[in-house]
Amino acid sequence: MAVYTEVGDAELDAFLADYDIGEAEALKGVAEGVENSNYLLTTTKGQYFLTLYEKRVDPRDLPFFLGLLDHLAARGINCPKPIHGRDGQAIRALAGKPAAVTTFLHGLWPRRIGAQHCAPIGRALAELHLAGRDFAIKRPNALSVAGWRPLFDGSRAHADEVAPGLARELGAEIDFFEANWPRDLPAGVIHADLFPDNVFFLHERLSGLIDFYFACNDALAYDVAICLNAWCFEPDGSFNTTKARAMIQAYDEVRPLAAAERAALPLLARGAALRFLLTRLYDWLHTPAGALVKRKDPLEYLAKLRFHRGVTSLADYGL
Amino acid sequence: MAVYTEVGDAELDAFLADYDIGEAEALKGVAEGVENSNYLLTTTKGQYFLTLYEKRVDPRDLPFFLGLLDHLAARGINCPKPIHGRDGQAIRALAGKPAAVTTFLHGLWPRRIGAQHCAPIGRALAELHLAGRDFAIKRPNALSVAGWRPLFDGSRAHADEVAPGLARELGAEIDFFEANWPRDLPAGVIHADLFPDNVFFLHERLSGLIDFYFACNDALAYDVAICLNAWCFEPDGSFNTTKARAMIQAYDEVRPLAAAERAALPLLARGAALRFLLTRLYDWLHTPAGALVKRKDPLEYLAKLRFHRGVTSLADYGL
Repeated sequence: MAVYTEVGDAELDAFLADYDIGEAEALKGVAEGVENSNYLLTTTKGQYFLTLYEKRVDPRDLPFFLGLLDHLAARGINCPKPIHGRDGQAIRALAGKPAAVTTFLHGLWPRRIGAQHCAPIGRALAELHLAGRDFAIKRPNALSVAGWRPLFDGSRAHADEVAPGLARELGAEIDFFEANWPRDLPAGVIHADLFPDNVFFLHERLSGLIDFYFACNDALAYDVAICLNAWCFEPDGSFNTTKARAMIQAYDEVRPLAAAERAALPLLARGAALRFLLTRLYDWLHTPAGALVKRKDPLEYLAKLRFHRGVTSLADYGL
Repeated sequence: MAVYTEVGDAELDAFLADYDIGEAEALKGVAEGVENSNYLLTTTKGQYFLTLYEKRVDPRDLPFFLGLLDHLAARGINCPKPIHGRDGQAIRALAGKPAAVTTFLHGLWPRRIGAQHCAPIGRALAELHLAGRDFAIKRPNALSVAGWRPLFDGSRAHADEVAPGLARELGAEIDFFEANWPRDLPAGVIHADLFPDNVFFLHERLSGLIDFYFACNDALAYDVAICLNAWCFEPDGSFNTTKARAMIQAYDEVRPLAAAERAALPLLARGAALRFLLTRLYDWLHTPAGALVKRKDPLEYLAKLRFHRGVTSLADYGL
């Protein structure tokens, strides 16, 4: 849960005067997301989502994030659509922070993942990749292989307290990937964080994708690899090939994976597991025990990393 | 901010099947309140408020709380109105917790208190007191004078770390009030926590009262005394007699304060200041420094307590 920036009633009224979305009738801080302050805003014209960007988001990235949402929404992707003010701007200041209003998406994210969720995910991911092809602004992936060693450096000294031998195993993984990370795969805009809590379903249908604040330019198949990790493991740690097959087949129907992308999947999935393992490990070691932010277990991703390292053929993914 | 109980999409659907308020279209945890898990629920029929009662609320008090909201709403008080299920029940279980759905009130709470807020507060408080007169269920005030010494016992050993001499000053206050607390004043249902964040305004008009989870039976004038503390001090600590006069006059127009109630106001206000000082002190000393719950400054209420102790006539309140 985020530490919220308080928004006053008078300053909200002044802020909304620059838009054509009616007057504020309610504003509720939303207990989701640790990066930003999020509010559900009800006006005389409907429901909207108000985000104040806190210090973990670089304001220089906002034209990418908001521009991307505009770009995707214009191409039919069900994502939050930025509301532009009367001056055309989608980003302005509120309570001393950069702020933006978007449409409010209906739907609930699935708590229990079933195979029926995975084809819609694959399809939506491929549609997202196609829609993002001609987006002009670029944003490199700060959490790709070049970022892993500095991230690890912040955790290495205490890594073995989380699991014996972890520091050595992660060091070896990073060495390996610095030498063997797949290059020259088809690239474009990826979501990079399409976990279940960022995907809404309504009446069994995928109704929206949210939280594009890790979106960046990278290999498209890396986004598929992230989703394999996020959607296709069971709570007991086993890999569900039915889910993976459904996801990849649906993706393929919209944007066929090239042979090089398929061949790279085990390495990409292993790298994606390492990426989430490293950020979770960092947060685990740097979040005070008394804090109310729920720390996510890094060892879940150590198990996933080891699974992908043991993959010998695409048949292990059900392909 | 509360630690939220997670509500799954499937269990929410099953829960809503017992109501006639449509199907879930969105569910957002609200970052307000430290007692309960609160969700803003959007259904095909509108917006609602969903509360899961956490361990700080005694389930045996729920018939009082929900019954009171029914009772008040039926008498025209703008408070959350419980939604009853098809079986007539307003309280049922969700995610293993007692849960209730209410209407969603429009409005924003005022961040900067002006004199113009205080007459509406006085009027609404008096209307609440009149509307509550014939409510059948009783709930004693656990945070009145009999509760202060046990509460203080949990803080006394460390009170002087917050302010030198605080333990001795608070001990003397409790001794004094145990001997001198005003008795036999007109009593009834009081809100007992009508702070600015529990009062909504819309277009300059009071649009709703929320958070009745401290409501109980006590002297009605004690509720006025709580509001004098909550609404009539300036951020610099000075007491604003214009605000107090506006509040009391507006209250009087709806429910005239008896002579004994007026005479008791300085003691009641001093006692109310002590009550919030004691709970804030307890929370201050028992909340981990790293926690994201914002601790409220107990010393703000020490200054208010001392102000009321120095009051020699009602003229000090602008009356």
